[in-house]
Amino acid sequence: MRTYFECVPCFLRQALEAARIVSDDATLHERMLRETLRMAAEMPFDRSPPEMGQRIHRYLREATGNPDPYRRIKEQSNAMALALYPELQRRVRESSDPLATAAALAIAGNIIDYGCRSELSRPQVDEAIAEALRTPLDSESVARLRSRAEAAERILYLADNAGEIVFDRLLIEQLPRERIAVAVRGTPVINDATLSDAEAAGLTALVPVIDNGSDAPGTLLDACSGEFRARFDASDLVIAKGQGNYETLGGAHAHTVFLFMAKCAVAARDAGCRVGERVVLHDRPRAHSSPSGR
Amino acid sequence: MRTYFECVPCFLRQALEAARIVSDDATLHERMLRETLRMAAEMPFDRSPPEMGQRIHRYLREATGNPDPYRRIKEQSNAMALALYPELQRRVRESSDPLATAAALAIAGNIIDYGCRSELSRPQVDEAIAEALRTPLDSESVARLRSRAEAAERILYLADNAGEIVFDRLLIEQLPRERIAVAVRGTPVINDATLSDAEAAGLTALVPVIDNGSDAPGTLLDACSGEFRARFDASDLVIAKGQGNYETLGGAHAHTVFLFMAKCAVAARDAGCRVGERVVLHDRPRAHSSPSGR
Repeated sequence: MRTYFECVPCFLRQALEAARIVSDDATLHERMLRETLRMAAEMPFDRSPPEMGQRIHRYLREATGNPDPYRRIKEQSNAMALALYPELQRRVRESSDPLATAAALAIAGNIIDYGCRSELSRPQVDEAIAEALRTPLDSESVARLRSRAEAAERILYLADNAGEIVFDRLLIEQLPRERIAVAVRGTPVINDATLSDAEAAGLTALVPVIDNGSDAPGTLLDACSGEFRARFDASDLVIAKGQGNYETLGGAHAHTVFLFMAKCAVAARDAGCRVGERVVLHDRPRAHSSPSGR
Repeated sequence: MRTYFECVPCFLRQALEAARIVSDDATLHERMLRETLRMAAEMPFDRSPPEMGQRIHRYLREATGNPDPYRRIKEQSNAMALALYPELQRRVRESSDPLATAAALAIAGNIIDYGCRSELSRPQVDEAIAEALRTPLDSESVARLRSRAEAAERILYLADNAGEIVFDRLLIEQLPRERIAVAVRGTPVINDATLSDAEAAGLTALVPVIDNGSDAPGTLLDACSGEFRARFDASDLVIAKGQGNYETLGGAHAHTVFLFMAKCAVAARDAGCRVGERVVLHDRPRAHSSPSGR
């Protein structure tokens, strides 16, 4: 997905919120804001929004000297999700369609996204879970996910955020475990999941977990490690979680299915859904995407 | 009022909306956006938001080669307000407190502000009028405005926007006409009223009207003409209409009273009111405003 003009005010909001999360120092807030303005003034709009997120958060780590500013938030999210996990696992097990319920819950977990919000309360997570259990996902898309997962020899699951990755485990447990690998980000960025979060979620004991070698809050293939790209290319099915993975990979890879909650008007419009909608989107590669299109 | 970090995303929105109002050319939209980002990256936050508005709209006029991009919008606003005027004048005349009713309607007219919005419909204006007639202004502030206007030998009324200036006429008609002068902007900027709008509103036939010599969407005294500054300094009472005049003059001049509708959270917080509230604010000069305060 290209960057739309409407994304730019949102970059500034993100940069400010991130600076405020990691520090009370108004001088740092101002530096973050001005540097983001400078970067945005020069950014190519034909690239995806997470490329800007990557630059903003690189600068944040550099300016604060903190290699993992969201570490505490990620630990809290994992702990909250792990506390919910036994009950959610029971819900999946007792469901008439465990895969559909697990997919709905995995997408509910996508609410734990500190790129789109600066605060998240337990009631918001509870409400997302309740809504996922109340309103099923599009049944045709889930049926297609099921048959593609059954047919695939190699499945790659791209995790998104800490905390959310515990919800992902519910879905991964419903997939053919011996044919699945999970990928996380290579370097901390926002609250995106890295290897330590996969460990905390109990995933490393369950399936092979690799990191993608990159610090983008999405999957910028050009910037990922050779190992990751080989896995990506060799997979029959890529299950890509979260809006950042949709924004970076959408419209380009027929073997990919996106599972996410659309969190802004721009992404919702691009994906053809409503803001707040939870979608299972089987990718339809675009014949040609014009870099100059608005 | 200083510029707050939250103002910056709003500058970008304003710049984009302005570019879209004057042209369908996506290249121009992108130039406006990038130039605003560059200007904002360097702007001093201890200056008021209208200084940024001034720069954005100077660039818009330069980039489009159009010295008055909002001309048609201003003419439409004047025509709409003039069509409403006879009925509003009747309401004021039949009111038990004509000055209070006229002040409330003048502030309702402050909804015609294309700096804060890109579209304004007739129902929105009708609703603002109905609300003004339904909910009176703070009676103590109006009583003080009344007694200050009665006592003042020289009153200067700073108009704000086209269309709105017709609503201002209702209030000006309730003030001692022989002791009042009206000031408008010197050069077109956004939909701010200039001399031709004062003429269209019938004000030039009623009272002396001067222009302030400036193209800021507010009153930046340093950039105003000597004639305007002399008038400003020699007045016993300055009635400053609109948020832009509050943002540029607030907290510095004891002889000023601000009449406006607070249109954003930043201005509302600074003025100590709610967003959407219509206020009559007798200025309280701040002892010392720290330029580095956040």
